[in-house]
Amino acid sequence: MGYLITLEGGEGAGKSSILARLASALEQQGHTVVCTREPGGIEIAEQIRKVILDRENVQMDPRTEALLYAAARRQHLVERIIPAMEAGKVVLCDRYIDSSLAYQGHARGLGIEEIYAINKFAIDEYMPDLTLYFDVEPAVGLARIEKDAGREVNRLDVESLKFHVAVREGYQLLVRQDPERIKVIDAGNSMDEVLADALYRVTEFIGTDGKSGNR
Amino acid sequence: MGYLITLEGGEGAGKSSILARLASALEQQGHTVVCTREPGGIEIAEQIRKVILDRENVQMDPRTEALLYAAARRQHLVERIIPAMEAGKVVLCDRYIDSSLAYQGHARGLGIEEIYAINKFAIDEYMPDLTLYFDVEPAVGLARIEKDAGREVNRLDVESLKFHVAVREGYQLLVRQDPERIKVIDAGNSMDEVLADALYRVTEFIGTDGKSGNR
Repeated sequence: MGYLITLEGGEGAGKSSILARLASALEQQGHTVVCTREPGGIEIAEQIRKVILDRENVQMDPRTEALLYAAARRQHLVERIIPAMEAGKVVLCDRYIDSSLAYQGHARGLGIEEIYAINKFAIDEYMPDLTLYFDVEPAVGLARIEKDAGREVNRLDVESLKFHVAVREGYQLLVRQDPERIKVIDAGNSMDEVLADALYRVTEFIGTDGKSGNR
Repeated sequence: MGYLITLEGGEGAGKSSILARLASALEQQGHTVVCTREPGGIEIAEQIRKVILDRENVQMDPRTEALLYAAARRQHLVERIIPAMEAGKVVLCDRYIDSSLAYQGHARGLGIEEIYAINKFAIDEYMPDLTLYFDVEPAVGLARIEKDAGREVNRLDVESLKFHVAVREGYQLLVRQDPERIKVIDAGNSMDEVLADALYRVTEFIGTDGKSGNR
């Protein structure tokens, strides 16, 4: 059996950029790595995502949306993650259950316990073995996004900042609930430092020798 | 606030035929009745149902399917049932949470508690006020269906019968858990008797005078 390692964080935390470099570093150690994110090209999950993102569906209820995300997660898990884990691979997944808990459960106010209940049904025993939470000040993260998009930093709107502060609060609650599984990475540091920190956390958990990495 | 009354039962129990006649009888008493069933023409719920029924989706995981049913239920509730209830109407809904509990939870083996968790999230405080369970011997119900379809009764297959026995067991478990809400109607009787029994159960609950029916 391989490992399921998830990467989590708010906007502009840089986790997606880190993911590819982390995968390379792990492969150099002999691990076989699969990088993925929902819906990940899984046909059924893509169809579900299309319903969620359909601009005509302005009336979609937040609970309907949460159930659809959980459904897409289930199918991606069954078709992509479980087979890779059964083949002894290290799966790096960009966002998973904690994103739903922090965004929908806490920041959108649906309730962490409520969102946990439907996601627990979706993932069953497949909780992440390890989660890297890339933590960054919301104002810093949002400024990075604005910069990447070529916009002026001062156009950050207050509503958006408030929401991202709430997302961070959500993640911090989760870290307090499960510090064994969720490791905090200071994503305010330079890319090289963040990568080194992430790699340290992963190898501390799965070992540095790919051949002995499988449980 | 109106009432949410659900009709439940296995195949061939005749509940769909009863529904229209029950609605007429209640309207003659002055109640304003809305008859519905999921997805009920609700655009988002129809889109979700299309994903579930897509024949290409042979690989759909049973938990994905259960989450999609719950999502369609949520949207149908929000767009159709809640507005009708807020307008003081009596909503008669053909199948609701108990169908998922009996079919997916018990008969398909996903677990009644597990299916309850995701459906509780979907319906929130909108548990049915009253549920009529149309109970019929599975062999009798299946024979009715075969007859309606113009097939020989002896073509009933054993697998199908086994499944319907399990569905009935599921409903019986639910009745034992919540006898105050779920009333059993003997659907082995004649249509007229079944209708009279259903009407009695409903009027016992909401009264026979539509004008005083609203809570």
